[in-house]
Amino acid sequence: MRIARFSIDGNVGFGVVEGDADTEPGLVLDIIKGHPFGEFERSGQKVPLGQVRLLAPVLPSKVVAVGRNYAEHAEELGHTVPETPVVFFKPSTSVVGPGDPVAYPAFSADVQHEAELAVVIGRMCHQVPRERVAEVVLGYTCANDLTARDVQRGEEQWARSKGFDGSCPLGPWVETELDPADVAVACTVNGEQRQLGRTGEMVRSVADLVVHISEAMTLLPGDVILTGTPAGVGPLNVGDEVAVTIEGIGTLTNKVIKRG
Amino acid sequence: MRIARFSIDGNVGFGVVEGDADTEPGLVLDIIKGHPFGEFERSGQKVPLGQVRLLAPVLPSKVVAVGRNYAEHAEELGHTVPETPVVFFKPSTSVVGPGDPVAYPAFSADVQHEAELAVVIGRMCHQVPRERVAEVVLGYTCANDLTARDVQRGEEQWARSKGFDGSCPLGPWVETELDPADVAVACTVNGEQRQLGRTGEMVRSVADLVVHISEAMTLLPGDVILTGTPAGVGPLNVGDEVAVTIEGIGTLTNKVIKRG
Repeated sequence: MRIARFSIDGNVGFGVVEGDADTEPGLVLDIIKGHPFGEFERSGQKVPLGQVRLLAPVLPSKVVAVGRNYAEHAEELGHTVPETPVVFFKPSTSVVGPGDPVAYPAFSADVQHEAELAVVIGRMCHQVPRERVAEVVLGYTCANDLTARDVQRGEEQWARSKGFDGSCPLGPWVETELDPADVAVACTVNGEQRQLGRTGEMVRSVADLVVHISEAMTLLPGDVILTGTPAGVGPLNVGDEVAVTIEGIGTLTNKVIKRG
Repeated sequence: MRIARFSIDGNVGFGVVEGDADTEPGLVLDIIKGHPFGEFERSGQKVPLGQVRLLAPVLPSKVVAVGRNYAEHAEELGHTVPETPVVFFKPSTSVVGPGDPVAYPAFSADVQHEAELAVVIGRMCHQVPRERVAEVVLGYTCANDLTARDVQRGEEQWARSKGFDGSCPLGPWVETELDPADVAVACTVNGEQRQLGRTGEMVRSVADLVVHISEAMTLLPGDVILTGTPAGVGPLNVGDEVAVTIEGIGTLTNKVIKRG
């Protein structure tokens, strides 16, 4: 099931996406009564996807991200795979939705794309045992872990370089039935392929990461875990359209615009 | 003015602390009508501080913290003062209030105290010019940037070592009239002094930090900036009572307990 968050005529709601296509024409939203993190049912009231504005599918209290989780990507940045996962935060103010413009930040001259599988947490949890990880995951969406590479190189902690406004596009919806073990993760810029990997290459699996992160901190419904990016990261320029596509989920597209 | 957040009989509210003492006996809360981030007035309805439970004075969407902002503390951990501030996040799930117990996390054997002046943001802001910093600051409170030092040494990014549940005690209230330029910041453990510094020793001032952080990201009302800790950090044990006192604000006390 694909659960989207959307706005129409100033109202915000959730809906179940119906149809097999990966893009808008032909897709319809069946509006949800209730909330995806609790009890809900389909209302039967349907609206074509083209008539709504899709929003970031969740409003995370925090995004917990992981660096260097694909060996080839670690190598392309001159690193080895770390002994323990590199865990960092992206704040709620960094989250934008599918189709939202991302303003090129004034403090960087080298913003880069990083296509990533995003895990959406469905229930409050802490110290999750490996065998119960599936119970706390609502589903999966696409993420772009936008990174000010020049700032990242100059600052030991990544709060500014990976936490700037707009640096965490999420969407287009949450797929609740994905098996994340080995799906393709791709990034295109203006239609040209830049990144292509498979989640099967991940050094730590989704289950590894949920266990490792929840060992330290409580995860809340709507919190998101980013699972690292495959090789092929590179710069974005004002005017670029960057798209993250994950097999079995869909495509998250954002345009880079000049700061107003 | 000192603004406290409190609960009484299951209700949560804000109140203005009246009285000159730094501790509870003699202090009274004048309950606020409205919200401290918007329009509000004192109701005249008063309750002794001893009859309420003080809560973390704000519910930050994010806590943005700064490392190595006192030269002597950087030295005691074997570092020099960095060329650019070391900026990291503590998540909302790390925040607890004055008097709240902090459970010793299972994944560390070396949790340490770090007494810090905390800046409370009063209005949404981005790219704040230096001369307008005062307009976006609601006031100041005490913070303890609890750190799992052993984990911090083994992990490049500090999300787990400084973001675990309970790692960000805040309180006891927000002082809106403090001049943060040069006040004493102290930490005691079981009544013994461990840290004592003055904000005048800070490498970067409050204004420097607000400018630097807001250059990258939007700050929301209730967001908190931690300004670094003076020398004297050290380990805490289960059963310890740790107190952060800041001149002109008051004292934030928490007890370290065994994880249940």
